[in-house]
Amino acid sequence: MSISKWTLPLRGAHNPSSRAEGTTPGSFANAANVGGPLSFSSPDTPGMPAPSAKTAWDFLPDGWSRDATTGFAIAPAGFEPITQLEHARLGIVTPEMERVAAREAHLTPEQVRDEVAAGRMIIPANRTHLSYALDAMAIGRATKTKINANLGASPVSSGTDEEVEKMRWSVRWGADTVMDLSTGGDLDACREAIIRASSVPIGTVPIYSMIIGRKIEELTLDVILATLEHQARQGVDYFTIHAGVRRAHLPFVQKRLIGIVSRGGSLLAKWMLVHGKENPMYEHFEAICDVMRRHDVSFSLGDGLRPGGLSDASDAAQLAELETLGELTERAWRKGVQVMVEGPGHVPFDQIEFNMKLQRTLCHGAPFYVLGPLVTDVFPGYDHITSCIGATAAAYHGASMLCYVTPKEHVGLPKKDDVKQGCIAYKIAAHAADVALGIPGARDWDDALTKARAALNWEQHFALAFDGEYARALHDEDLDVDTDFCAMCGHDWCSVRISKEIVEFASGKAEGFEREKVIKSAALTEEQKRVLEQRGVLSPNEIHKLASKTRKAVDAEVGKGLCHSDFVEPEIAQRIQKDRLVQIRAKDEATAED
Amino acid sequence: MSISKWTLPLRGAHNPSSRAEGTTPGSFANAANVGGPLSFSSPDTPGMPAPSAKTAWDFLPDGWSRDATTGFAIAPAGFEPITQLEHARLGIVTPEMERVAAREAHLTPEQVRDEVAAGRMIIPANRTHLSYALDAMAIGRATKTKINANLGASPVSSGTDEEVEKMRWSVRWGADTVMDLSTGGDLDACREAIIRASSVPIGTVPIYSMIIGRKIEELTLDVILATLEHQARQGVDYFTIHAGVRRAHLPFVQKRLIGIVSRGGSLLAKWMLVHGKENPMYEHFEAICDVMRRHDVSFSLGDGLRPGGLSDASDAAQLAELETLGELTERAWRKGVQVMVEGPGHVPFDQIEFNMKLQRTLCHGAPFYVLGPLVTDVFPGYDHITSCIGATAAAYHGASMLCYVTPKEHVGLPKKDDVKQGCIAYKIAAHAADVALGIPGARDWDDALTKARAALNWEQHFALAFDGEYARALHDEDLDVDTDFCAMCGHDWCSVRISKEIVEFASGKAEGFEREKVIKSAALTEEQKRVLEQRGVLSPNEIHKLASKTRKAVDAEVGKGLCHSDFVEPEIAQRIQKDRLVQIRAKDEATAED
Repeated sequence: MSISKWTLPLRGAHNPSSRAEGTTPGSFANAANVGGPLSFSSPDTPGMPAPSAKTAWDFLPDGWSRDATTGFAIAPAGFEPITQLEHARLGIVTPEMERVAAREAHLTPEQVRDEVAAGRMIIPANRTHLSYALDAMAIGRATKTKINANLGASPVSSGTDEEVEKMRWSVRWGADTVMDLSTGGDLDACREAIIRASSVPIGTVPIYSMIIGRKIEELTLDVILATLEHQARQGVDYFTIHAGVRRAHLPFVQKRLIGIVSRGGSLLAKWMLVHGKENPMYEHFEAICDVMRRHDVSFSLGDGLRPGGLSDASDAAQLAELETLGELTERAWRKGVQVMVEGPGHVPFDQIEFNMKLQRTLCHGAPFYVLGPLVTDVFPGYDHITSCIGATAAAYHGASMLCYVTPKEHVGLPKKDDVKQGCIAYKIAAHAADVALGIPGARDWDDALTKARAALNWEQHFALAFDGEYARALHDEDLDVDTDFCAMCGHDWCSVRISKEIVEFASGKAEGFEREKVIKSAALTEEQKRVLEQRGVLSPNEIHKLASKTRKAVDAEVGKGLCHSDFVEPEIAQRIQKDRLVQIRAKDEATAED
Repeated sequence: MSISKWTLPLRGAHNPSSRAEGTTPGSFANAANVGGPLSFSSPDTPGMPAPSAKTAWDFLPDGWSRDATTGFAIAPAGFEPITQLEHARLGIVTPEMERVAAREAHLTPEQVRDEVAAGRMIIPANRTHLSYALDAMAIGRATKTKINANLGASPVSSGTDEEVEKMRWSVRWGADTVMDLSTGGDLDACREAIIRASSVPIGTVPIYSMIIGRKIEELTLDVILATLEHQARQGVDYFTIHAGVRRAHLPFVQKRLIGIVSRGGSLLAKWMLVHGKENPMYEHFEAICDVMRRHDVSFSLGDGLRPGGLSDASDAAQLAELETLGELTERAWRKGVQVMVEGPGHVPFDQIEFNMKLQRTLCHGAPFYVLGPLVTDVFPGYDHITSCIGATAAAYHGASMLCYVTPKEHVGLPKKDDVKQGCIAYKIAAHAADVALGIPGARDWDDALTKARAALNWEQHFALAFDGEYARALHDEDLDVDTDFCAMCGHDWCSVRISKEIVEFASGKAEGFEREKVIKSAALTEEQKRVLEQRGVLSPNEIHKLASKTRKAVDAEVGKGLCHSDFVEPEIAQRIQKDRLVQIRAKDEATAED
């Protein structure tokens, strides 16, 4: 028998070199490379819109030109660059680009600069926020996929302290940026507190503040610009501006099952209907750019007409708005402002690639920042799951940042644990996409954990796990000693153990992943104790036993090396399995003495 | 401004007629249609293996022929059909096919028969289990996507009663089939109890029973056949048989990071290494078929060499085994036995389509039954999520049944709530894929819930939700009255409410989805109370208040129609929001009097 003629087409993780087309690290002697593609992209299924041939280089401000030798831009005399985009166009590597390259091991500072110059990457870094504690990061196809956590008090729930704590908590669980979407409480104080406390970029939807104390109908250009100026001075790193919702789009909304589900979009639609005029954010887009440029606030061009159910996905309203977002991308680039574009929230799984590829076409590669999307509507309470499925596909097919959805979506304001669950679901989506796209180094983490798993090294297994505390608690629920098997199969049935014992297999023998000679299972932490209490499977007595066990409880009874068959006879391990471990699980509390 | 020139390519849910190629309901006058394709499939990205040109019709038993007029098969004289496949080949519509068509509204009994005859669909229905309470169902590309829940005691945890209860619980949460994978306790009694109690097909991995009381090395053909005969008589509907792991494949396993992770696969590998002989399941495959045919037990051809980490996915071992599974599919069809094929457990997102399409090529369209796959390895404790992402992509690209993974995967044996979480994650995956594939009617459910959501009809919203009790509990955590907004945005910011108020929009006005004139929020059920207790956000006093509120508590204070702005003035709704609802959320228990 010969090896199968079937092999995986080399287009992903196994052939990273095929993904980093164009610019090679250190190749900047060649001017032709400036603005060339550096992307990690999925193959197109037939029928997908083709990539745009243009980049931000095609939308330089009036009066700018390009140096024929270096490829970089030449600005009019006396021009002082402010934004990362302006610096990049002039060939300048900023400290923030250096920092981004340090955080993205597969990129050089020059590659970061070129991606920013091409408009395919943004570094949302308000100069005021940089003067506090902002740690610069980047969003774009060449970087690792990012996730955003939405926070903010509503008129019905929460307050400033709670939201600052949620911000810290979301960063603890991997949020790369945080949006303060407060619509209740003291909006200004909450925003200020979050910005000052945050090391990650903060985004807002300024229209929320614009209508505090007034009706949407009363919104004027002065209010818009004054609010933006105020928030920009506070240090907000990116603004969601719903400039893409136009009067002409509203008839497309009429037949939708669930109309407009974007708060900003619905407010501006109401404004346009009341006044019979065009969206002021669209009309005065250049004035808005001027405010944002002065502080290097980036655009997140809002999708006010995103679908609110599968029925409304990819419809005329959504696609017409996306076309406008492409136009606004060009207009922002001409003003030197960084841009990302927001994308849809409910999309059937088969339509996700189309949506991602169409944005690539219309917005010339500007980073796509998508909410979910949810791939079904019928699981409220589980929308962190319905949406992280869509988010994985979105990131694989073109999105650069994923806005999380929590279990509370559609039913209420997320609490702290909802924030954690949303972050974790989205870290899964982002990392799975990075592995699939072949981002260099992304899979190393998975391989390390696989090696620990193969070695039955539980300590390393949990140390490498994204939420090792939680995994350890689940493990200890059944079996609180560090055996070379787990409760799913028990000793005799552990395929991993059997593989490891087969001498000619490499499995379980990776260097640095060996089990320690003497392994002690630690007592439960408070967090682990809480996890087991919430699961409600073990009795309080059993949990107490796990949380308070001592060295004696762990190994003294056995006398040597616990029950690893590496170090004890299989018969002893099996006896432990039978006599000791089952007893730990016994429901009769009287038998579960310490 | 005109409508965008961009529109979604019509290839999915919006164009169901394009998916059901070939056989049209009621078209059986035309013999050419027998065995023709009736499939719901995703478009191929470039480089994917092409579909097989063959079906089960190309692998009839010796001595069989086809009628040139009807297209159906002609068996040798005196032949008595037993299996669904044999009946289908002879043109017979069985009561089970009738039942399947009744449960799959988009299929006729004749279409079911033809799909079974072509080998693209199986009806796992042991005749003994049919004599108890089995409700016939089908697995295949033309049906809705199915999910399986794995249960079973291990030597370390659980017992028969607990497992029967888990079976009932998993069916309650949507499991279409259940596998009893017990390796501990009284295996025989547990299996018997589960089969007798179950309305869904039961699968087993008989090798687990074969080595109880003996070492794997002692396994003989007699033991294999006697065990299969015994379980077939008990009424097991499908057997996982790891006949595809061959001696020649084992060298391909040597370099893997995590060797063999299938229990059956690792046991048989050990047998082959000890004896220096070929896998007995492969050698004696026809004898196994004979036993299974007599009871109409279906094959689930096990993937003993499935990858146990991303690093080992799509490798030579896995693909060589899949090629053997294709050969075994042909051999089973020649014996008249129904077949599905098992698929991999850990696969990077970008490799899923390739794996699905290759199985379609090699196994001639036999249903693919996949475990997950997990799209990253580093989230133990959350593998119901990491794997349901892969499962959605797998079902979209070709899988017919998804084997769930629970949060306890890799760390222990699932408890009751893990079973629920696993089932729900997989119902999400299956339904999302059905919508994406354009299975007729699949999206109607989503559209109904969207209409209820647009109408702000919470009662219908929760009634339509897959787990409405849970969604309701989350909702009531913030806001225990049935308002026309929720705690996420509050009254003034509810985009859905604004859309509904725009007269010219259809949004929120669907017939049959109107809010009732007087809406009362019911008190919490015990289950909802438990949910809120576990979340630990509300004080016991607050939960008690929600669980025990009376009609008086719900509406008497307001005097009329609660706080829907449909029925009360906006000012009153806003007062409720400010004065009443925030107070409910207050942390000070003293203020939360009933």
